[in-house]
Amino acid sequence: MIEFPKPTVEQFFRTHVITNFAVSSDEKRLIFSSNLNGKVNLWAMDLPDTFPYLFAHHDESVSFIKTDPHNRFVLAGYDKDGDENHQIYALPPEGGLPQPLVTGDSQEKYFFEHLSDDGERLYYGTSENNPSFLNMHVRNLKDGSDELINEGEGGPTHLGAISNDESTFVYYKVFANTYVIGFVKVGEETYDLTPDPEKVHTVGQAVFTDNQTIYFPTDYESEYSYLAKFDLQTKTFSQVVTLENESVETVKYDKSNNQLYLGTEKGVEHGLYRYDLSSKQVEKLEKPVASIHQLHVAKSGNVYLLGNSGTQPLNIFQTTNGEDWKPLTNNRVLGVSQDDMVEPDVVSYSSFDGMEIEALLFRAKPENDNGHTIFWPHGGPQAAETKTFRAMFQAFLNRGYTIFAPNFRGSTGYGSSFVKLVEQDWGEGPRLDNVAGIEWLFENNITDREKLFLVGGSYGGYMALLLHGRHPEYFKAVVDIFGVSNLFTFVNSVPEHWKPIMERWVGDPERDKERFIKDSPDTYLDGMTKPMLVIQGAKDPRVVKEESDQIVAKLREKGRDVEYFVMEDEGHGFSKKENEIKVYSLMLDFLQKHQA
Amino acid sequence: MIEFPKPTVEQFFRTHVITNFAVSSDEKRLIFSSNLNGKVNLWAMDLPDTFPYLFAHHDESVSFIKTDPHNRFVLAGYDKDGDENHQIYALPPEGGLPQPLVTGDSQEKYFFEHLSDDGERLYYGTSENNPSFLNMHVRNLKDGSDELINEGEGGPTHLGAISNDESTFVYYKVFANTYVIGFVKVGEETYDLTPDPEKVHTVGQAVFTDNQTIYFPTDYESEYSYLAKFDLQTKTFSQVVTLENESVETVKYDKSNNQLYLGTEKGVEHGLYRYDLSSKQVEKLEKPVASIHQLHVAKSGNVYLLGNSGTQPLNIFQTTNGEDWKPLTNNRVLGVSQDDMVEPDVVSYSSFDGMEIEALLFRAKPENDNGHTIFWPHGGPQAAETKTFRAMFQAFLNRGYTIFAPNFRGSTGYGSSFVKLVEQDWGEGPRLDNVAGIEWLFENNITDREKLFLVGGSYGGYMALLLHGRHPEYFKAVVDIFGVSNLFTFVNSVPEHWKPIMERWVGDPERDKERFIKDSPDTYLDGMTKPMLVIQGAKDPRVVKEESDQIVAKLREKGRDVEYFVMEDEGHGFSKKENEIKVYSLMLDFLQKHQA
Repeated sequence: MIEFPKPTVEQFFRTHVITNFAVSSDEKRLIFSSNLNGKVNLWAMDLPDTFPYLFAHHDESVSFIKTDPHNRFVLAGYDKDGDENHQIYALPPEGGLPQPLVTGDSQEKYFFEHLSDDGERLYYGTSENNPSFLNMHVRNLKDGSDELINEGEGGPTHLGAISNDESTFVYYKVFANTYVIGFVKVGEETYDLTPDPEKVHTVGQAVFTDNQTIYFPTDYESEYSYLAKFDLQTKTFSQVVTLENESVETVKYDKSNNQLYLGTEKGVEHGLYRYDLSSKQVEKLEKPVASIHQLHVAKSGNVYLLGNSGTQPLNIFQTTNGEDWKPLTNNRVLGVSQDDMVEPDVVSYSSFDGMEIEALLFRAKPENDNGHTIFWPHGGPQAAETKTFRAMFQAFLNRGYTIFAPNFRGSTGYGSSFVKLVEQDWGEGPRLDNVAGIEWLFENNITDREKLFLVGGSYGGYMALLLHGRHPEYFKAVVDIFGVSNLFTFVNSVPEHWKPIMERWVGDPERDKERFIKDSPDTYLDGMTKPMLVIQGAKDPRVVKEESDQIVAKLREKGRDVEYFVMEDEGHGFSKKENEIKVYSLMLDFLQKHQA
Repeated sequence: MIEFPKPTVEQFFRTHVITNFAVSSDEKRLIFSSNLNGKVNLWAMDLPDTFPYLFAHHDESVSFIKTDPHNRFVLAGYDKDGDENHQIYALPPEGGLPQPLVTGDSQEKYFFEHLSDDGERLYYGTSENNPSFLNMHVRNLKDGSDELINEGEGGPTHLGAISNDESTFVYYKVFANTYVIGFVKVGEETYDLTPDPEKVHTVGQAVFTDNQTIYFPTDYESEYSYLAKFDLQTKTFSQVVTLENESVETVKYDKSNNQLYLGTEKGVEHGLYRYDLSSKQVEKLEKPVASIHQLHVAKSGNVYLLGNSGTQPLNIFQTTNGEDWKPLTNNRVLGVSQDDMVEPDVVSYSSFDGMEIEALLFRAKPENDNGHTIFWPHGGPQAAETKTFRAMFQAFLNRGYTIFAPNFRGSTGYGSSFVKLVEQDWGEGPRLDNVAGIEWLFENNITDREKLFLVGGSYGGYMALLLHGRHPEYFKAVVDIFGVSNLFTFVNSVPEHWKPIMERWVGDPERDKERFIKDSPDTYLDGMTKPMLVIQGAKDPRVVKEESDQIVAKLREKGRDVEYFVMEDEGHGFSKKENEIKVYSLMLDFLQKHQA
């Protein structure tokens, strides 16, 4: 019968993302953000029907979606071309065109924090008048009045949770990714959520189970985050649920069944648990995907989950009993079955100092294998490469590249000490972990010494530049996607509300001048002798375009082979399908060309 | 609470179309063609789930979709930028990128006609070697062998139906839209489907209920098409089901229940009936929409229907019992409820010679009303303006225009004599019906004499040009969308397989020279004094670009106010959302400008 060629790389380009979702309080409508029509827009489905329809046309990334409990409006956050200056818009309940609601100068940010149970008061944070630490306001949606309720100080401050009676507020103050403290404000009184805010630890998203009881994840005095409780009546902190070598990251309250859902992280995979507040029992739940991106518990107790796996793109699932997950979406790779794709092997190796490093190894299928390996240091750096679908990875694999992605020191999911190892050491320990990973690939005959490429984005782009500069002998060619090229310029150019955390995270440019020089990729321009492709979004607020401009200019001055592609209408990622396809194609062509 | 503006015209631009669909034989997959992602592509849903996923990426219009009964492949027809040179492609059963299957020179056409029950033999018609009358081939999909099975002659010839045992074929020969004869070929024998092929009548899509029995719609010796039967054993023709003032247009066989579904036309609305072959009972069925675009009966007896109504875009529905229609898609206007849109009133008026003309009148809602009316002569001309969703109409209405669309003589749905009245009279009777319609609008105080616009496409564009040239006093401004400007050039430039029908349809340029001159819009250039906007697809094979080029050039030579917009990558319609939006915007701006 008719013979068909095997799936081509172009098919992977056509995969859509689902970035976030919201479910109306009556669960009759699910609204999600997706690039289904080529740019990110809001789509909706009228449950139980799942055929989606365009809900809001704006062609921009969506930072949050929130439905009014009484279905009078929907709120959504949009930025402009990825500049991350998110502002708050309102939509008619049946959808339409977003109307500005809480907005201001295009350089200001307005973060949605909370909508009161009656839908009448909107709590939001803003960079206005307090760009570094942020102020908290409440906007009365009935009369439009606006009140400043908290001035951030000491660190960027966010609203965490509000009691039902709106008398009590949980705030977080961020000193670093690994140092976030929480406090409760009741009237003029303020209490610390954890016993000692001076100790370095984090506090995650809190929930009120009643006006006096707050549950939240924290790693206070622990390697892994656990579920903790703060009792406002007795002002006592207590440890509630601890999991072995596993961090509780998300807590959602299921009022109807008096239980909490806990989302966890453990190395390259996420976990899901249920904690019964009456029986105090913890139960591990099946989940439909390896990685959970968003979890929502409806008033009915139904749970909605957005997540993905190595070979499954982002989809939304629903369960009525915490067990039988029903997919609500069917986002897939055009004409490619999961069997045609590659699930990663989880491997580990010993680094320069004996530390165990876990990594994902995606092995090209024999029929595709081109003999080359792509080494991928992930971004963050305080993040992890988990079992998650990346169209880019599967496109590389389809073309025959093997991919290796180590969770070097500084990665999340391996305990609090491990994640802190990248702080004030961006370029030494993590780099040597990557080098050890490369050597491990060679030693285990996974990769030929002559056939290694290096590709990374964000911190991974920084690491790609640094590895290139210091260890060019390993690589045939290097791709840098919005990577930091110089630590001095980087710490000065991040968004204002990031600046307070830079000292702990990266260091102080004056105090740590020697280290900054040592760990800045552009210190090693002489080493960067291999062909390079640099990709940058012009609107990127995290790693600004100058980071790429300057290294490209310096290398070209030296006559090096550098291709440079700037996307004028993107930030630190992709919001437009055509840009994504263009970049994938450039990367594939670049790698192909340099295989020889 | 939050106040929202009323829906804007931009929201109507975002509506999607669903142009056709196919259901796999096990009914586990429904594949449909839609511009969901901005260009026309194939999408699929795995029933009963209805979340669609991209099934084939090709960014071109789809002329048909056919699934292999054994699910080894899917066939689809694509042209290039609307040039209507459809060719046949194959897709892997799980979707992917279309592979050429029956294709040839880009100027040739390959029409899908039939796939054998075992999925192994593909019957198709082609312009290759017989551009005017078309040849029929069968391609063996197992070994790739190809056999010519019928050479068209006398008129463009299409395969109508094939008996299950593939011994017997029904063909149609087209002499005009109103003169289509059918014949049956069994081996070397050929029989006429109707008693006298010399009498002018039509035969529509036939079905075999067994190898000896053929049902089909025909208006043989009747004003309205009815269900007829041809018995191959006795070689007898018989009239089976006749409906009053209603034409049977579609016949589908439901083998599992031994019944036929009949799709009908009656003026501005479609109908749906079921005929029980055992009891000989006819039953009128409820339908979920006013207009039926496609009907499919599965082996199980389930019925699938694609259709729309005045205020409801194209959607697909399913019924298991012929009654309770369940929507499978939820295609709607962004944030606009049906109540926000306008359903047409059905009106009628007496024309110059006393003939009754039915028309659709869409009255602008009082809160939108701008006092102006758009007169819309439909295309075809042997077609009708039915209760069907047009985003363009609802956008006009939203901006406050009232719309009037008459079914002038020559329209379908009002009997065989009526539809023939436009033949060899393109410019007199139909034009005077339109003029009478305009006067009726004035007389009934629906329209102010100073506030009438004229907009038409295809034959409607021809009529707009002609009305403009001969009755400029009626109009403030005129929009012509790929309209015929000169009958002489038109009859010479249509697709080759249309040429055999031109004589009966339009006339003979030599014999009817005087009439061609009288009925050609460009005879009346002097009259065309009002501002004009002309829209044309560069690839249009029906009304070629020269038709618009020449009238625009001639009018500009005379210093007239003519805007001209050519879409380089479109034919006789829109396949790309961005082109559609551009044209809508141009039209709305043009009308707005000329209201003053």
